[in-house]
Amino acid sequence: MADQTPVGPGPRVDEVLVDLGARAYSVVVGAGLLGGIGARLATLGFRGRVALVTSERVGELYAATVVGSLEKAGFRPAVVEIPDGEQHKNLAWLAVIYDRLLDAGVERGTPVIALGGGVVGDLTGFAAGTLLRGLPLVQVPTTLLAQVDSGLGGKTGVNHARGKNLIGVFHQPRLVVADVDVLRTLPPREFAAGLAEVIKYGVIGDEMLFRRLEDGLPDVLAHGREALIALVAACCRQKAAVVARDEREERGDRAVLNFGHTVGHGVELLTEYRTLLHGEAVAIGMVAAARVSRGLGVCDVATVERIERLLRRAGLPTEVPADITPAALALAMQSDKKAAGGRVRFVATEGIGRTRFVELTTEDIVNHL
Amino acid sequence: MADQTPVGPGPRVDEVLVDLGARAYSVVVGAGLLGGIGARLATLGFRGRVALVTSERVGELYAATVVGSLEKAGFRPAVVEIPDGEQHKNLAWLAVIYDRLLDAGVERGTPVIALGGGVVGDLTGFAAGTLLRGLPLVQVPTTLLAQVDSGLGGKTGVNHARGKNLIGVFHQPRLVVADVDVLRTLPPREFAAGLAEVIKYGVIGDEMLFRRLEDGLPDVLAHGREALIALVAACCRQKAAVVARDEREERGDRAVLNFGHTVGHGVELLTEYRTLLHGEAVAIGMVAAARVSRGLGVCDVATVERIERLLRRAGLPTEVPADITPAALALAMQSDKKAAGGRVRFVATEGIGRTRFVELTTEDIVNHL
Repeated sequence: MADQTPVGPGPRVDEVLVDLGARAYSVVVGAGLLGGIGARLATLGFRGRVALVTSERVGELYAATVVGSLEKAGFRPAVVEIPDGEQHKNLAWLAVIYDRLLDAGVERGTPVIALGGGVVGDLTGFAAGTLLRGLPLVQVPTTLLAQVDSGLGGKTGVNHARGKNLIGVFHQPRLVVADVDVLRTLPPREFAAGLAEVIKYGVIGDEMLFRRLEDGLPDVLAHGREALIALVAACCRQKAAVVARDEREERGDRAVLNFGHTVGHGVELLTEYRTLLHGEAVAIGMVAAARVSRGLGVCDVATVERIERLLRRAGLPTEVPADITPAALALAMQSDKKAAGGRVRFVATEGIGRTRFVELTTEDIVNHL
Repeated sequence: MADQTPVGPGPRVDEVLVDLGARAYSVVVGAGLLGGIGARLATLGFRGRVALVTSERVGELYAATVVGSLEKAGFRPAVVEIPDGEQHKNLAWLAVIYDRLLDAGVERGTPVIALGGGVVGDLTGFAAGTLLRGLPLVQVPTTLLAQVDSGLGGKTGVNHARGKNLIGVFHQPRLVVADVDVLRTLPPREFAAGLAEVIKYGVIGDEMLFRRLEDGLPDVLAHGREALIALVAACCRQKAAVVARDEREERGDRAVLNFGHTVGHGVELLTEYRTLLHGEAVAIGMVAAARVSRGLGVCDVATVERIERLLRRAGLPTEVPADITPAALALAMQSDKKAAGGRVRFVATEGIGRTRFVELTTEDIVNHL
């Protein structure tokens, strides 16, 4: 990837503004962007020391390109590597990141780049949000899931033995760079899992995106650059709008992004985060949410079928694993940190592109599955 | 302390509003307030589970009173105890607090009370600020230093081997309860160290407070209730105004609170936080700051003398320990996280009650001592 061209003719760069007033930032979506990260950081006024946190696997593929681009722009990059895998998103590795960043001589104002998937982004984001009371953060998400979801919006977190992301802060990045070229090295199963979240954006607020997926899925699965840029940008645009309206999930608007996640989290918990990827669990959860919506009379059967069919075509599971009983699922959903007083604010679909919040008990949910 | 009367005649309760718009909160300063904490939490709309984090020493003296008051108001308190001492303000004890809070079944919205000095307040504040992306925090500072400084303003933190408070977040409390009665059980040396920060507020922005200390110091040292309430409230009022103007130290206004801290931190670092209490180091730092101000022609010699005399009467040290060389001190001040590019934004005094920021190198500072 060292010969990537950051400027010049080629696929367009799509820019999405996350409008948080004085803390507004850009998400740039394009192809071949890794080689231009140094220049972009320079335009933001940064100079000198910069820290790059990445994982072993991602680092091996892309760290050299990013480091080269930073050096070309006059930066002095220090690279911190953590192992791949969700099991390392914990306080122990957080402590290692703190140590390495301080060893590298970061000061207030030193930018920290997170190059990787959700684990790197969440852990690095938390470290940047808490070290020296907040260092500038640049997210360079390298999975489809992170590009459309965790890479923007400012949620950062660390897992606890009792649950995922129980420890976290909001820390908005100063810049997000989503380079769709890096998605080519994703394992197909992980790419498909990311597509689940893309489909989610279609269901909750963008019927055109959903249709584009229905019509152009083969091109997307073949990593067509233009198709991917359009897709990722559409998702980021929707997420940016939600985040701008409800940055800290205080008004509740932001909770719309949890469509499919109530059942999805329950399934993840019961399979101990082992057999299913997050996106796969969300795919199952979206079909469940659609069925519950239908059961409540909120949407028609055609909506359920369209969601199910598209997910299946993308290679995603749509059924709760047979060994999970409704009672166990109801219980598992209660332990979600979003559950307040046993009741759940459930995101229902009214049809592709439209949602509604419904107050339900977890029993109500499993009864409609 | 079980027979404290939270209402009824007696010393007045002084209320200071920290006006942060939608996140505004009250600091109540008075005597015998511990027994009324349950009722105050109820007025804020909290119900059910509440967590109380305290230290062994403070817990032994006061936890029963607070727990009793919480139970009387219908709460189900869970007590978490950590050992006393700055050496426990680390990631390991933070992890313990996370564990205990989750064991106690805290949910989003469960209030967490920090009953103790700066260590308990900072560590508990950080835990509350990061667990479940933020739990409501109630600060009940039990040292003079915490009552006038760390207990309000929202700074929370954990130490790192490389320095104090290198890890932290801003997390404003929902309520601060400063009960001056608890100061009677403070070791006299710690009480005096707290007075250093009180004197600081006089120097940086409240000449009346400074005069009141000059005139009424014996009454304060004898723990006169009215005198202490007036004193603590005056400090909180000043800090509240600074915090409301510059919550996150972004505009720079808040840095005025660092008067005496540049040299103070350097001295603390060189004595390895062992021989001097924080307030004692700040006392030394304030005299140094006054001398630097005089050396720059910013204030007169009478100002330096008044500051020095009052600190000495309060039983505080005023000279940099003889074994610290100017060169070592200059270097130590550079490692402070507030140092940017080797230069320091130094808070100088123009006379009691007035300050000015001056850009200095750490060499400039030691040259004027």
